[in-house]
Amino acid sequence: MEASEKIAVVEKYVRSFDESSLELIKEIFADDAIVEDPVGTEQRNGIGAIAEFYKTGFEANAKLELTSKPRCAGNSVAFSFDVVMTGMKISVTDVFEFNDAGKVVLMKAYWGPENVEA
Amino acid sequence: MEASEKIAVVEKYVRSFDESSLELIKEIFADDAIVEDPVGTEQRNGIGAIAEFYKTGFEANAKLELTSKPRCAGNSVAFSFDVVMTGMKISVTDVFEFNDAGKVVLMKAYWGPENVEA
Repeated sequence: MEASEKIAVVEKYVRSFDESSLELIKEIFADDAIVEDPVGTEQRNGIGAIAEFYKTGFEANAKLELTSKPRCAGNSVAFSFDVVMTGMKISVTDVFEFNDAGKVVLMKAYWGPENVEA
Repeated sequence: MEASEKIAVVEKYVRSFDESSLELIKEIFADDAIVEDPVGTEQRNGIGAIAEFYKTGFEANAKLELTSKPRCAGNSVAFSFDVVMTGMKISVTDVFEFNDAGKVVLMKAYWGPENVEA
């Protein structure tokens, strides 16, 4: 998978928030994907649980703003961004791992209370 | 492990480059740690191979400059920085995973050719 293809998925992910589009989420993630957000909390297993998770984010009207160029390596990409919501900003780093079909099979989000600004 | 303790390890890691100190590297990593830099390449297993790896970086006079606040989550911290060398800069995101003793047991570095500036 080329770096440009991984970066296109990251851009699609940002767009899914812009458009509150669960259709885009379903294009991005494999059916059996796992989301751990933040790392250390309970994992969401499978596209159903994952769509439910993003639905909540979209309902909060969260938008993503990339803060630096994504870093592509191996079957992965790490990218940093701000989650902007009404009255709150969270600075996050996500890691996506891809399968051979170019779908995200594992997403880990790194952020903690220190990364939240009221 | 408190977020402040993880951030102190990240700061010690930056200092190890400032001081070209393999002693600091040996304080940071567990004896059986694994380093994968960049992700997708051969892993360095154990503190001996890891020290050898950093020795090469120190000999290149590489210095690290954090570019944003580290993100602590679970047993991990993700942090982004520039590696500055003579005539070259590489923008990297590292993930450290810690054991219960507060030592790094797994380091993954995310960067690719797109993140290198001559």
